[in-house]
Amino acid sequence: MAVTAPNDEPRRSAKWQARREAIVDTSAQVFARRGYHATGITELCTANGLGKGALYHYIGSKEELLAAIHDRVMDEVMLGADRVAAAGGSPSAQLEMLGDELLDVIHRYPDHVWVFLHEFPALTGDRAEQFRGRRREYERRVEVVLQAGIDSGEFRDLDPRLTTLAWLGMHNYTYLWLKAGGRLSARDVATSFSDIFIRGISNPTP
Amino acid sequence: MAVTAPNDEPRRSAKWQARREAIVDTSAQVFARRGYHATGITELCTANGLGKGALYHYIGSKEELLAAIHDRVMDEVMLGADRVAAAGGSPSAQLEMLGDELLDVIHRYPDHVWVFLHEFPALTGDRAEQFRGRRREYERRVEVVLQAGIDSGEFRDLDPRLTTLAWLGMHNYTYLWLKAGGRLSARDVATSFSDIFIRGISNPTP
Repeated sequence: MAVTAPNDEPRRSAKWQARREAIVDTSAQVFARRGYHATGITELCTANGLGKGALYHYIGSKEELLAAIHDRVMDEVMLGADRVAAAGGSPSAQLEMLGDELLDVIHRYPDHVWVFLHEFPALTGDRAEQFRGRRREYERRVEVVLQAGIDSGEFRDLDPRLTTLAWLGMHNYTYLWLKAGGRLSARDVATSFSDIFIRGISNPTP
Repeated sequence: MAVTAPNDEPRRSAKWQARREAIVDTSAQVFARRGYHATGITELCTANGLGKGALYHYIGSKEELLAAIHDRVMDEVMLGADRVAAAGGSPSAQLEMLGDELLDVIHRYPDHVWVFLHEFPALTGDRAEQFRGRRREYERRVEVVLQAGIDSGEFRDLDPRLTTLAWLGMHNYTYLWLKAGGRLSARDVATSFSDIFIRGISNPTP
């Protein structure tokens, strides 16, 4: 998964990309621990073992770094949604797979997700717009699956938008407690949540 | 609902309490907009129309103010849970009432809840411990209802802790989109969510 370079940057080498990705990951840890606003560029330099000039060479600005952390999570989330769409299957099966994929990302990127969910209001202008667009795009993927199930009679005739928000809340909120090495794996949690949610929306008399 | 004064403070007048409560509410708006760490005492003074000395007279410290914002939400949430326990009824009815009460608080205190959910890691020492304790206390209220339903056979034999977390996620996450004047009232949302969740956990063959 590539962290996208800013649009106005020339195409960079694979080595540059890999270094940038490592900086994004390290900085996500720092932001998750200290908060985005409370973290200065000096602290990011120390954490990444880089001088200011070198850090800016890779990240452009602190806000661009925040956008890159968001992109890293959203790239993974959208890849998961693409796999689900490619796999096909019934709306119930698709919804279960979407839950599996989402909790897998939350579990693998706890710091990024923490920053993603807490600091997104710090994004401004085009970056805020792009972030909202990607978020809406993912929400639409969930809503399309729910609508398909409603249309086919597999799911009850519920409000698809509200049901999407219920599903997203149940899954996204795991970022507060779904830890590596916890009592339950991300997959166990996803299976239990799907079991509750899909029964909850299924049509008893299809 | 009273905002509790710090334990080591002498008992204050009703007027002092009311003024403090107003400061807590105004400051919650400022923190929600600017973030806790990014907000300085000077900014809080301006927002509250007070000098530094007067502000400290009411709040003690910035962290104490954050704790008071948390308490204001948790006071309301626990009062709601008390009303539900007093009302009695089946586990399904109790869970539905708990959802109603919780979304009502989230809807009425959007700024406090935003600060509550984003800035709680800034609490330290006893304040952090007290916050975790109150949070756990509320979670236990939900879990007790779920366990009662499992024991009576009204609900399926699910993991009560994981089911509590699923329920909390679905409801708490509404803080991101449940707005005053939105398409749906807090009660509409609570009713739809309970409909999904309770069907999802109910025992089809009790």
